[in-house]
Amino acid sequence: MSEALRLLEYEFLEYVKKMSAFSEALSLIYWDLRTGAPKKGADQRSEVIGILSSEVFKMSTSEEMAAYIVKLSSAKDLSEVTKKTLEECKKEYDRNRKIPAEEYKEYVILQSKAECIWEEAKAKSDFELFRPYLEKLVEMNKRFIGYWGYTGNKYNTLLDLYEPGVTVDILDRVFTKLREKIVPLIKAIFESPNKPKTDFLFKRFPKEKQREFSLEILKQMGYNFDAGRLDETVHPFAIGLNPGDVRVTAKYDENDFRTAVFGTIHEGGHALYEQNISSSLIGTPLCTGTSMGIHESQSLFYENFVGRHYSFWKKNYDLLKKYANGQFDDVELDEFYRAINESKPSLIRIEADELTYPLHVIIRYEIEKGLFNDEINVRDLPQIWNDKYEEYLGIRPDSDANGVLQDVHWSGGSFGYFPSYALGYMYAAQFKQTMLKELPNYDELLESGNLLPIKEWFTEKVHQFGKMKKPLEILQDVTGEGLNAKYLIDYLYEKYQKVYQLS
Amino acid sequence: MSEALRLLEYEFLEYVKKMSAFSEALSLIYWDLRTGAPKKGADQRSEVIGILSSEVFKMSTSEEMAAYIVKLSSAKDLSEVTKKTLEECKKEYDRNRKIPAEEYKEYVILQSKAECIWEEAKAKSDFELFRPYLEKLVEMNKRFIGYWGYTGNKYNTLLDLYEPGVTVDILDRVFTKLREKIVPLIKAIFESPNKPKTDFLFKRFPKEKQREFSLEILKQMGYNFDAGRLDETVHPFAIGLNPGDVRVTAKYDENDFRTAVFGTIHEGGHALYEQNISSSLIGTPLCTGTSMGIHESQSLFYENFVGRHYSFWKKNYDLLKKYANGQFDDVELDEFYRAINESKPSLIRIEADELTYPLHVIIRYEIEKGLFNDEINVRDLPQIWNDKYEEYLGIRPDSDANGVLQDVHWSGGSFGYFPSYALGYMYAAQFKQTMLKELPNYDELLESGNLLPIKEWFTEKVHQFGKMKKPLEILQDVTGEGLNAKYLIDYLYEKYQKVYQLS
Repeated sequence: MSEALRLLEYEFLEYVKKMSAFSEALSLIYWDLRTGAPKKGADQRSEVIGILSSEVFKMSTSEEMAAYIVKLSSAKDLSEVTKKTLEECKKEYDRNRKIPAEEYKEYVILQSKAECIWEEAKAKSDFELFRPYLEKLVEMNKRFIGYWGYTGNKYNTLLDLYEPGVTVDILDRVFTKLREKIVPLIKAIFESPNKPKTDFLFKRFPKEKQREFSLEILKQMGYNFDAGRLDETVHPFAIGLNPGDVRVTAKYDENDFRTAVFGTIHEGGHALYEQNISSSLIGTPLCTGTSMGIHESQSLFYENFVGRHYSFWKKNYDLLKKYANGQFDDVELDEFYRAINESKPSLIRIEADELTYPLHVIIRYEIEKGLFNDEINVRDLPQIWNDKYEEYLGIRPDSDANGVLQDVHWSGGSFGYFPSYALGYMYAAQFKQTMLKELPNYDELLESGNLLPIKEWFTEKVHQFGKMKKPLEILQDVTGEGLNAKYLIDYLYEKYQKVYQLS
Repeated sequence: MSEALRLLEYEFLEYVKKMSAFSEALSLIYWDLRTGAPKKGADQRSEVIGILSSEVFKMSTSEEMAAYIVKLSSAKDLSEVTKKTLEECKKEYDRNRKIPAEEYKEYVILQSKAECIWEEAKAKSDFELFRPYLEKLVEMNKRFIGYWGYTGNKYNTLLDLYEPGVTVDILDRVFTKLREKIVPLIKAIFESPNKPKTDFLFKRFPKEKQREFSLEILKQMGYNFDAGRLDETVHPFAIGLNPGDVRVTAKYDENDFRTAVFGTIHEGGHALYEQNISSSLIGTPLCTGTSMGIHESQSLFYENFVGRHYSFWKKNYDLLKKYANGQFDDVELDEFYRAINESKPSLIRIEADELTYPLHVIIRYEIEKGLFNDEINVRDLPQIWNDKYEEYLGIRPDSDANGVLQDVHWSGGSFGYFPSYALGYMYAAQFKQTMLKELPNYDELLESGNLLPIKEWFTEKVHQFGKMKKPLEILQDVTGEGLNAKYLIDYLYEKYQKVYQLS
C-alpha cells in the first residue's frame, strides 16, 4: 500500500474516532438523563443532544466521508478493522444519503409528533387518534424502501436495519415452527391442574436489599465492577460507553423482587457483551454488539438459561433468603422454582413470560410484514391484532391500550425491530446446545456459582468480535448451522412439561 | 441593522451555542469522572475529552470566528447579550491566537509533564526536582505576557485571566492592609488563654447521616434540588452544566463532620450562583459566574457568614445533634460555636481557618508578583516561602512538601489565580455590609432558618448577570464603592475578639 494511502487510512480512522467520541459523550448524556439528571436541566440537555447528534449525522454523510469511502474501498492491504469500519460507514452513508434531505426532515418531525400522539392515544385507548400518524409513518417507510431498494421482500430492508442478513424467508420458517409448537404447549399448561403457587413472591422486599442481592449476582456472572456500575432507573437498560465503562440500571418494585432481580440479570447479560468486546475496536463503529438479536441472545441467555434455571437457584436461594424479609422462609426451593417459571397468557408483551413471549413477537412480525407488503391496512390493525391474540394466546384485548397501542416502537417508526426479541431467544437456545458439548458440566457450574466459564465461552465465541462478524456468521461459526427453531422448542418443552408436570 | 447583519448575528449565536453544547458535554464528563465513573473506562474517556476540547479550541480560534468578530464588532444595534458574547469570544480569540501554535503545543506538553513531576517532587519533598519545570513554566508565561501585552505591571495580564479588572495596584493596597491587621490579631489569639475546646468535634459521625444533614442545609439555603443533586467525591466541587443542572459534591470524613458540612455549604454557595443565572444567557459563554473571585465570594459568604455564624447554629444545632451520634449531647451551643471557629496558624492553605487563610494567599501573591517582575528567582522560592510563613504566620515549614510544593496550581501554569481566593473573602464581607442595610434582620433570618431572602438578594444583585457584568462592576453597583479591605477586617476583628474573648 502506498504511503499516501496509508496516510488516508490513518486520517479516516481519526475521523471515525471523532464520531465515536461524540457518540460516547451522547451515551453518557443518555445514561445521565435516565439515572438522576435534575429535571430542570433536561430542556437544555436536549439541545446538547440535538447538536451533538446532528454533528455525528453530518460527519456520517459528509463529502469527506464520501471521499474516504471511494478512495479506500479500492485499496488493498487495509487492516480487517479498517475494512469492516469502512463497510459500516458506507452502509450508514448510503442509507442516509439516499433519502432526500427534505423528506428526512419531514420524517424526523413526524416521528416526534407521532410519539406524542401515541402517548395520548394510549392514555385514551383510542387507536383512531394515532391512526393517521401510523399511516404516514408506514407510507414514508415504504418510500424509503423505494430509495434503499430491496431483495426478495420489501420488509427485508427494514429487518436489515436491526438484524443484518435475516430475511422474511428465514423468519417465516422459524416463526411458523415456533408458533405451531408453542400454541399447543400453552394450551396444555392452561389445562394442567398442576399450577404453581405464586402468592409468596409478592411480599415486601426492601429496595436496598434487592440491590445488594442483585450486586452479588452480577459479581457471580463475571460483570466487572471496575468497568461498570449499577444505578436505578424507570425503564431499565444497559449501556456501553466503551468496553471499560458499561453500566447497568435497574428498576425496583418492593412488592415484586423479580422486576429488579431478573431485570438486572437480563441487563447484566447485555453488559457482559459490551464489556468483553476487543479493545482493539475502541474508537470505531465496530465496538458494540453486532445486532439487536445477538445482543438479546446474551441478555436472554442469562435471564432464562441461567437466572431461571433450577441449578442457579440451588446455589442462590439461600442467599436470596438472606436478603429477603422472611418471605421465602416457608417456601421450598422446588416451589420457588416453579413460581418464578409460571407461564400464563397475557396481553402485554413486556410482562410476558419466556414461553408466551415469542407469540407476542410473532404477532407483531406478521402484522409488519403484512403492512409493508400491502396485505394489511393500518385502519384494520385493532381488529387484526385482537384476532391474532385470541387465536395464538387464547385471550382477547379489551382495549386498544392493552392491544395495538401498547408498544412505543411504531410511533418512533421502528418497523423490523420486534423480530430481534424472538431471534435472541432462538440464538440463545442454539448457543446453549453447542455450549453443552463444550461445557457438559453446565448444571454443576450453576450449582457451584461458578459462572465464569460461561462468560469466557461467550467472550471467545461472541463478545470479542463486536461488529466484526454479522449475526448469522456468528451463529454459523459457533453452532455449525443456520438458524434453527428446534433448540428453543426443545428447551421450552422439556422445561415446561416439568414445571407443569405434564404427562 | 440590515437583514444580512441580523442573519450574521443569528449564525454567530448558533456557532456559539454549538461551542456551549460541547462544553456542557465536557462538564458532564468531568462530573462523571469525579463521582463514580468506572476506572477502566477512564483512558478512553480522556480521548473523548481531548477530542471535544480540541473541537472547542478550534472553534474559538477559527477563521469563521475571526470573521464574526470583525464583521459584528462594527455593527450597531446588537443585543446586549450578543455584544458581551462577542467581547468574550474576542478576548478568547486574541489570547489563543497571539501565542504561536508551536509554543502553545510545547506549553501544553510542559504542563502535563510538570504536573507529574510536581506530584513526585511533593511525595519526595524535593523542590529541586520540580525547579526546572517551574522555571520553564514561569519563562513561558513571561513570553506569553510579551505576546499578550500588559498595562502597568506584567503580572496584571495574569491576574486578568481570573479576575478581569483587578490589578497589582489594587491588590497591593488591600493586601497590605489585610496583612497589617490580621498578623497582630493572630498574635493576640495565639497569646489568649481563652482557647476553645475542640475534642468533641472529632467523633464518629456516620457518612449517611452527615449527608442527610447536609441535604437539609442545602434545602435551607434555597438550593433547588430539581436543578441539582449531591454526590460523593474526593476533591469536592460544584459544577454548573446549565442553570437547570448545577451539581454539588462532597467528601465525607467520618471522624470530622466539618469536612462535609462546611464543604457542602461552600459548594452550595457556588451552586446557588450558577442556578440563578438568567436563563436568557443559556447557550452563550456568559452563562457562568463572572470571575473566580466573585464565585468565591458566594461560596465563602455561605460558608462563613452563614455557616459559621452563631445565629445559624442557634437554628441548626439541634438538627445536627439529631443526625449525630451523641457526640454533641453534652456540648453547649456556645462551646460548639467557638470550636468551629477555632483559629490557629497552620502550614497548609486548604486546611486553614478563615482568619489565617488570607495570609496564605498573600504569601503566594507576593511571590508570584516577584517572579513576574524579575525580583524573585525560582531557585530561591523555598527560602522565601519559609521566611514569609515565619514572618506572617509565626510558623516555619519543616519541608518543601509542607511548604512551597503544597499547591498544584503552579505545576499547571496557573499564575494569578491565588488572589481570587482572598478577593472572594473581601467581596463577601463588602456585600454583607450592604446587605445588612437592606436586610437589617439578617441575624433573625439565620435564626429562623429563613435563608431565602439572602439568596434572592444575591440573585438580584449578582447571580442573574452571569458574565454580563465584570467583577468590579458588580462590586461597585452593589456596594457603591470599589474594593475595600476594611469590611473583612472589621468582621474578623469583631468575630475573633469575641471567640477568643480578647479585651
